[in-house]
Amino acid sequence: MTIRMKDIARDLGLSQATVSKVLRDHPDIGESTRRRVLERVKELDYQPNSLARSLVTGRSFLIGLIAPSLLHPFFAEIAIALSDVIRDRGYSLIVSSSEEDAEREKEEISRLLGRHMDALIIASVGSDIQQFERMNSKAQPYVLIDRDLDGVDANFVGINDKRAGYLATEHLVSMGCRRIAHIRGQDNSPGNGRFEGYKEALRDNNLFFSNDYVVRRNYVDIETTRRGAEAMRLLLERNPKPDGVFCFNDPLAIGAMSTILESGLRIPEDIALIGCGNLPNNDWLRVPLSSIDQRSQMVGQHAAELALNLIESKQMPHTQTTVLEPTLVIRSSTQKKRNK
Amino acid sequence: MTIRMKDIARDLGLSQATVSKVLRDHPDIGESTRRRVLERVKELDYQPNSLARSLVTGRSFLIGLIAPSLLHPFFAEIAIALSDVIRDRGYSLIVSSSEEDAEREKEEISRLLGRHMDALIIASVGSDIQQFERMNSKAQPYVLIDRDLDGVDANFVGINDKRAGYLATEHLVSMGCRRIAHIRGQDNSPGNGRFEGYKEALRDNNLFFSNDYVVRRNYVDIETTRRGAEAMRLLLERNPKPDGVFCFNDPLAIGAMSTILESGLRIPEDIALIGCGNLPNNDWLRVPLSSIDQRSQMVGQHAAELALNLIESKQMPHTQTTVLEPTLVIRSSTQKKRNK
Repeated sequence: MTIRMKDIARDLGLSQATVSKVLRDHPDIGESTRRRVLERVKELDYQPNSLARSLVTGRSFLIGLIAPSLLHPFFAEIAIALSDVIRDRGYSLIVSSSEEDAEREKEEISRLLGRHMDALIIASVGSDIQQFERMNSKAQPYVLIDRDLDGVDANFVGINDKRAGYLATEHLVSMGCRRIAHIRGQDNSPGNGRFEGYKEALRDNNLFFSNDYVVRRNYVDIETTRRGAEAMRLLLERNPKPDGVFCFNDPLAIGAMSTILESGLRIPEDIALIGCGNLPNNDWLRVPLSSIDQRSQMVGQHAAELALNLIESKQMPHTQTTVLEPTLVIRSSTQKKRNK
Repeated sequence: MTIRMKDIARDLGLSQATVSKVLRDHPDIGESTRRRVLERVKELDYQPNSLARSLVTGRSFLIGLIAPSLLHPFFAEIAIALSDVIRDRGYSLIVSSSEEDAEREKEEISRLLGRHMDALIIASVGSDIQQFERMNSKAQPYVLIDRDLDGVDANFVGINDKRAGYLATEHLVSMGCRRIAHIRGQDNSPGNGRFEGYKEALRDNNLFFSNDYVVRRNYVDIETTRRGAEAMRLLLERNPKPDGVFCFNDPLAIGAMSTILESGLRIPEDIALIGCGNLPNNDWLRVPLSSIDQRSQMVGQHAAELALNLIESKQMPHTQTTVLEPTLVIRSSTQKKRNK
């Protein structure tokens, strides 16, 4: 027999409205009533009917995440943080991967909107801003993470990418590197921001900048180590070779590490290496990898709070941009002895 | 203006039933009609109303995945494979993490059932089989992955864990190891199966088995490298020390690796090391790590197919058990020179 809300109300001599308020965590209800209802709910193993809840509120209580890859630990960490925050508010997370493909991202946005997501959270691959404009015009809540899009008035949560590039490059300078190369990411806000920070740090330290020392990879979230290895092979052909390399992300740096070691050079003595992302296994790599922490957990939490706020506000709030400050994490891959 | 199904039907001179059949991929419809409908759907950017679809079919088109941790790449790979398969059939994946906590897993099962998942896919932490029996009695489709549960008649997809343990241990024997230790997992089907395989391989090779060489960790999917490092410290206190270690999974092996190297011993010359899971970064570790491939992608694909079959069958099919064969992947961590 299916238990209904009215059974619980009758058992406890309360109105259905009161039971419903307890289940929606409404502040109007006294602690003792709340406790009685929740005990009875537990005894009867009552499952609030989410379809009914959706019909009453007009919400699906679903939030969709579209990211380039869930295998990249940065996005997995964001997904976990997101899921934790929204779960406590009665929402569930639907995940979807764009595989760094703008066309697939478009399809996924359409598909998830067709499923009535209350909000979307998107680490966009895309240059195509039409879909975002359409969501704006329909007042469909969404939050961009990690990558901001030019020309769209959107809510955004990410790190200060220019600062990330600056911190990484300045650290290489302070370790004595003088010919610093960069394996850069795509032509999007993190790719461009980190590149800008790299150039600015060189300039501030009166160091030489040359496009010869910049190699660009267009796909940086799938099959990334292989791409990092390729890019590093190009950099080793330069004359003179670089003595420090800042990579757009850690998987690229892991690929670069393999090329450097296989060519018989030492890290950091011959070439110091730093990535970005501060992934969980950085300590256990062939050479423990210095990195920039991108604060994935906080990105996830802020994006979740922002999305819930958009969903639950009566009027669409003004768009918000939350930029978190990255931090430097030093490991062996950059710790050159200065006086050798 | 919102586009409705009847607009498309009228535009093309078809009945709404025909358009609906095309959108549900019904086999009754001829190819040219199908194409005309899909073209018009695309032109108009028509979003099928999923709520309406749910009311007609009685399905939510949602499948829930509950796994110990999405940060463990094994489960992330499964999630991606699952999501790819079900997406092509019009379903979306909701993810949820139990954090290796049986109580939390119970809550998540209740919560997701309250949200009318058409099927659940669960890598269960749990010893409590009540919830699974209740799902059976309600004919709620679900598939267990990775960990089978004693005493429940359930659909299951996983690898042959005993074979995994056997392969790993026999490989250590073939590399010349004679005192082989095991850092084992929990008291569940993978933990017990791999342990059984380990013991059987020792027996078949007339090697010594002692409980002193087995260390058990109860949480093996969160904070795992730390736990592997601890377990290895215990094993290094044994006299004589082990000359080979098979770890329940790769993150434990990465922790064990750090302890071995920090204590000044060499891998594989002093202690050979093998994990299980064959994670993406195994090639780039301080010592590239040999492992057993758990075929995560195939586990995800099979589980998805099985779940879709359960959902779409008119009668509940008999439960199925799919056991995939693991494979050995050899890297430097076990490649001892035999004649030294």
